[in-house]
Amino acid sequence: MSSQAKPLLRALAGETLRVPPVWLMRQAGRYLPEYRATREKAGSFLDLCYTPELAAEVTMQPIRRFGFDGAILFADILLVPQGLGADLTFVPGEGPRLSTVATAEEVAALRPAEAIHDTVAPVYETVRILSQTLPPEVALIGFAGAPWTVATYMIAGRGTPNQEPARRMLLEQPDAFFTLLDLITEATIEYLARQVEAGAEAVKLFDSWAGSLSALDFERVCLEPNRRITAELKSRFPGLPVIAFPRGAGAWLERFADSCGADCVAIDQHVPTRWAAERLQPHVCVQGNLDPLLMVAGGEPLAAAARRIREDLSGGPHVFNLGHGITPDADPENVHILLDAIRG
Amino acid sequence: MSSQAKPLLRALAGETLRVPPVWLMRQAGRYLPEYRATREKAGSFLDLCYTPELAAEVTMQPIRRFGFDGAILFADILLVPQGLGADLTFVPGEGPRLSTVATAEEVAALRPAEAIHDTVAPVYETVRILSQTLPPEVALIGFAGAPWTVATYMIAGRGTPNQEPARRMLLEQPDAFFTLLDLITEATIEYLARQVEAGAEAVKLFDSWAGSLSALDFERVCLEPNRRITAELKSRFPGLPVIAFPRGAGAWLERFADSCGADCVAIDQHVPTRWAAERLQPHVCVQGNLDPLLMVAGGEPLAAAARRIREDLSGGPHVFNLGHGITPDADPENVHILLDAIRG
Repeated sequence: MSSQAKPLLRALAGETLRVPPVWLMRQAGRYLPEYRATREKAGSFLDLCYTPELAAEVTMQPIRRFGFDGAILFADILLVPQGLGADLTFVPGEGPRLSTVATAEEVAALRPAEAIHDTVAPVYETVRILSQTLPPEVALIGFAGAPWTVATYMIAGRGTPNQEPARRMLLEQPDAFFTLLDLITEATIEYLARQVEAGAEAVKLFDSWAGSLSALDFERVCLEPNRRITAELKSRFPGLPVIAFPRGAGAWLERFADSCGADCVAIDQHVPTRWAAERLQPHVCVQGNLDPLLMVAGGEPLAAAARRIREDLSGGPHVFNLGHGITPDADPENVHILLDAIRG
Repeated sequence: MSSQAKPLLRALAGETLRVPPVWLMRQAGRYLPEYRATREKAGSFLDLCYTPELAAEVTMQPIRRFGFDGAILFADILLVPQGLGADLTFVPGEGPRLSTVATAEEVAALRPAEAIHDTVAPVYETVRILSQTLPPEVALIGFAGAPWTVATYMIAGRGTPNQEPARRMLLEQPDAFFTLLDLITEATIEYLARQVEAGAEAVKLFDSWAGSLSALDFERVCLEPNRRITAELKSRFPGLPVIAFPRGAGAWLERFADSCGADCVAIDQHVPTRWAAERLQPHVCVQGNLDPLLMVAGGEPLAAAARRIREDLSGGPHVFNLGHGITPDADPENVHILLDAIRG
């Protein structure tokens, strides 16, 4: 099967398919017992990210079990900050903790973008293993956090409500803030370029906290870095499909889709699909956007919502996905209900 | 001065003014030393809400200090649940605590809509005092929480991340959920009608948690109750201006503005003003949308953002406001910077 025959890549190239390709954010995750077993074997979460055989194994697990159209590399958006010199640990039950980067001096003390490879090289090996292992009809997706979202963690040293420490640094120390944003942007380009060289067939940028930016900051802090990374990757790898996910962008999505240069814009569950069909699909492939809570609830509400989303977006290129990651309390059996609703 | 000469009412009626009228969400609040002094004198937060002379006094304080174009009644969106029979307390530093309404039986045990007057009657007295006290150019705004937002607190008994308990009740017990939503809707109509009879010249519906609804639930859970309350009030009080605030509605705003029946849609700081000018202002007056963080930061960034918002929305009816309430750490002096930027 030639790569252009892979359904996911056809949709990303702008083709309207009768049955949309499907994959799920966090499809390799804690809702799967086989993931929890491998995670246990690996030791820490970071050990799992940095052990290519195990990271490839958990990436493969949902492909074997469900036959998704896309396999997303197993890694974490905070590996890039670690590569730039931040101390990183994951506290069980509490999430990530990083050394903070809150002043111009701390920004200046970070390593240069090219230095990240020393730390994150095992990720590229995971991609290489996967590119040789995946079934021929499944597309391999590399990914990174988008610069604003990565910056929110580096500045605060952890997840924060409404990302206030990062928004305050943007207001109060704009020079240091944008120096940091540029450094992350450059590192992200180098990181994703290596993933593509290792075999990733598409890349996705996760801007999970785009929604906390005020509208007046959105262009410079979210849209522009997404645009710059997309343009640079497409210049190095002509034809590379790029998926952007400015989560929570809301009314900003219309201009984002029209101008960021990505082939596909992923939308969260708060975006009305009929609006997306009218305002976004003329410009890009749309990915999304089932409410992850329905993967917990299951039953006919899940099937009905999946059919409705598929129908609303059937007039243009569409990749079926959730609006955010599948949660640990989701029932794996509900994935079969979802797939039957989409493919049936 | 006839009421139609009040700048705020002219803008709500669809007039494009050279200088937009301005008021601030939570303008009577903890950032003002005179508010803190009155609050101290009142005893508890609820005592302040239910003592008409003191509630009127804190409503007047920002009018005296800043000369805003609108005065919003001082009260709380959780007085309606209390009127319906929920126990309500405010825990200092932690926020509201209510007895929960999480089952069909607990919904059935609530009081009927008309019973709320027994509890909330002092609010109407506050409105009466204000209608006799306000300067003639200042419009008096009544308000209530919109049903979804009020329901999220009643179901969980407190504020919750992403309003998950309420979203789960919507999925798992839809009959009980919609019975509750209908009861709140009816109570809200009665509550606002009495405020108008007491002298409120416009009313605002706060749907602070509209943004947590999935797009597939938004119409029935957010838009429809807002529409029903607006239609019923306009039927009882022809010409009454209604402001709706579906905070976080994002891409849903376009259809909301076009179909909810409100004269004005308030937008949060995440909505791009140029988009609002193109997609919303042809249908409604737009209220908003300065980032409240700028009221803390102050200086030229505040003035520049205020001028930009004013300029972007200058082609249609606009009421200047923040995108969310002014925070306790805001500097009152920054209000003068804001007013100079808008009126200067």
